[in-house]
Amino acid sequence: MEKELQSLLESIEPVDSHWEKLAWERLRSQIRPRGSLGRLEEMAARLGAICKSLTPNVSRKIIFTMAGDHGVAEEGVSAYPQEVTAQMVWSFLNGWASINVLADHVGAEVRVVDFGVAADLPEDWAVIRRKIGKGTRNMTQGAAMERHEAVRGLVEGAHLVMAAVQEEGFQLVGTGDMGIANTTPSTAIVAALSTKPVKDLTGRGTGIDDAAWCRKVRAVEKALAVNRPNPTDPVDVLAKVGGYEIAGLAGAVLGAAAVRVPVVCDGFIATAGALIACQLAPFAKDYLFVSHRSQEVGHQAMIELLERPPLLDLSMRLGEGTGAALAMSLVEASARVLRDIKTFEEAGVTDTGH
Amino acid sequence: MEKELQSLLESIEPVDSHWEKLAWERLRSQIRPRGSLGRLEEMAARLGAICKSLTPNVSRKIIFTMAGDHGVAEEGVSAYPQEVTAQMVWSFLNGWASINVLADHVGAEVRVVDFGVAADLPEDWAVIRRKIGKGTRNMTQGAAMERHEAVRGLVEGAHLVMAAVQEEGFQLVGTGDMGIANTTPSTAIVAALSTKPVKDLTGRGTGIDDAAWCRKVRAVEKALAVNRPNPTDPVDVLAKVGGYEIAGLAGAVLGAAAVRVPVVCDGFIATAGALIACQLAPFAKDYLFVSHRSQEVGHQAMIELLERPPLLDLSMRLGEGTGAALAMSLVEASARVLRDIKTFEEAGVTDTGH
Repeated sequence: MEKELQSLLESIEPVDSHWEKLAWERLRSQIRPRGSLGRLEEMAARLGAICKSLTPNVSRKIIFTMAGDHGVAEEGVSAYPQEVTAQMVWSFLNGWASINVLADHVGAEVRVVDFGVAADLPEDWAVIRRKIGKGTRNMTQGAAMERHEAVRGLVEGAHLVMAAVQEEGFQLVGTGDMGIANTTPSTAIVAALSTKPVKDLTGRGTGIDDAAWCRKVRAVEKALAVNRPNPTDPVDVLAKVGGYEIAGLAGAVLGAAAVRVPVVCDGFIATAGALIACQLAPFAKDYLFVSHRSQEVGHQAMIELLERPPLLDLSMRLGEGTGAALAMSLVEASARVLRDIKTFEEAGVTDTGH
Repeated sequence: MEKELQSLLESIEPVDSHWEKLAWERLRSQIRPRGSLGRLEEMAARLGAICKSLTPNVSRKIIFTMAGDHGVAEEGVSAYPQEVTAQMVWSFLNGWASINVLADHVGAEVRVVDFGVAADLPEDWAVIRRKIGKGTRNMTQGAAMERHEAVRGLVEGAHLVMAAVQEEGFQLVGTGDMGIANTTPSTAIVAALSTKPVKDLTGRGTGIDDAAWCRKVRAVEKALAVNRPNPTDPVDVLAKVGGYEIAGLAGAVLGAAAVRVPVVCDGFIATAGALIACQLAPFAKDYLFVSHRSQEVGHQAMIELLERPPLLDLSMRLGEGTGAALAMSLVEASARVLRDIKTFEEAGVTDTGH
């Protein structure tokens, strides 16, 4: 599958700067002061370049919520027991959870993918089955997964998105996560890729106390010391200190970039996936929007590495794709800005050129 | 009409803290870590208190875009000529402008009100006619308007909103503005109500150059020196250094509070109106959401006076209600959060109480 990953990465091209220029020309001739829509304009120009169009349509929206469990949970790094992962998958499938409510609000479909839940999910559950293992291994004792497992997660995450775009016509992709303890591998990923000390990157996850926070810092430090992930080899980092659902989340970003659709990542865990994707294929960043600033402290370091400031800052720290859902509506708004606001010429309004 | 204003102000009651408590109880028992939806939860709790319900519905949304002209434009404080106000009203009525596009995106209706455009708008234009005068007087030479005109704008702005809620069933109100030069009176209002120097509150409006910015600072300073607005009498401030559409915008906030519906104000000018409203009726603040942080520098002082942090920060500075439109979708999302996310008990998911 390494070969499949290689050809996926090679298929990712930068966006079209000619269309970006055309988009800016249209934005600057619309009946409003130049620059007055701020970041909506930046997004609109990028959508023009991604979609090679001055009339981009991103109204068909889909969110992939990737689920997985983590062996490092046995270090006592989470406030919740591991069985909650499967319970939350059941909630997603029934439409009971936060992501269902917010995705419905913005008109996005939700698909739930099992990349590595530590339970046999009943056969009648309508979950998409891409299970690589029943939870990763405890990364404080060795690699969280085999390299070929990481590659498989990347490729299968990409294929899910590519099929949704090419076979079903989805135009805008969101990524979200579910996995008890998954802020711990996400912290390890950003620690491996940045120069900041682990304790400055470690947050409270779902709401752990001081003792659990100390265990979490130690678990990340130990995982890095035991595994020595190679920061110049993102697959190595993903395999040694990542997670199955994080591989899927990284793959989703690669898949979106490969088929040239915009992709919006959720908070801390989904951004960890996006970070791996953009280290593997730097042009993938052209297609990426970071939805919101997570309350999880290490998110800032990810944002700095990605150079993609988040669109929202609502003190959220839930995951599931909830921040992605809200931000996808802003991305869609920016497509509408480019396409639908009339120019001075079209409307016959005085333009002073400001 | 002073009497009508007085009874309007007296009709505004604080929100119901009992319902706010019930809302927090529900939010804290939902299938997600406590507090994990951040500001959406704060909004949801407030909506519970405003609507006296755990199943608030704010899906029927309306934006009032209030238009007016300003005598102070003759001081050379704007990048655009005054005739643009009427041209933009025409654009709004035709659905060509930014507010039409963004309101449509979030499913809100737009109503355009002429509170004081400096032109006779053609009879066949479907604008709501509440014209108090053809533009205010130049506030550097004396009061922008008579006190009774300010009162009229407040009462008529309120009545428009109250009728939309009570007769048509709208559940969420947004306020927006159109008026060449109207950042100048808005700056004067916040300068009159705060202790900060005028130059620290004066921004670039639609995009003025340094010379125009200096004229704008001088115009505001002169208006304050000539008129000596009384900061303890918000109607006096509004009359002397405000504007007709700003009176309507303040009235809209009062009207929403009077009939107990949430109201979302747009950027600099609409927040100036909201500030006047909340000085007149402090409980009005309970119903108010500030949509976004405007690029206009004086907005921060308004936010501090209102103690209502904005929901969005997208470097926008357009007006029209564009920021309100986007934020109304977030307010609606928070109503959905309160109403639709299941509790641990409802879903049968393990709650560790974190």
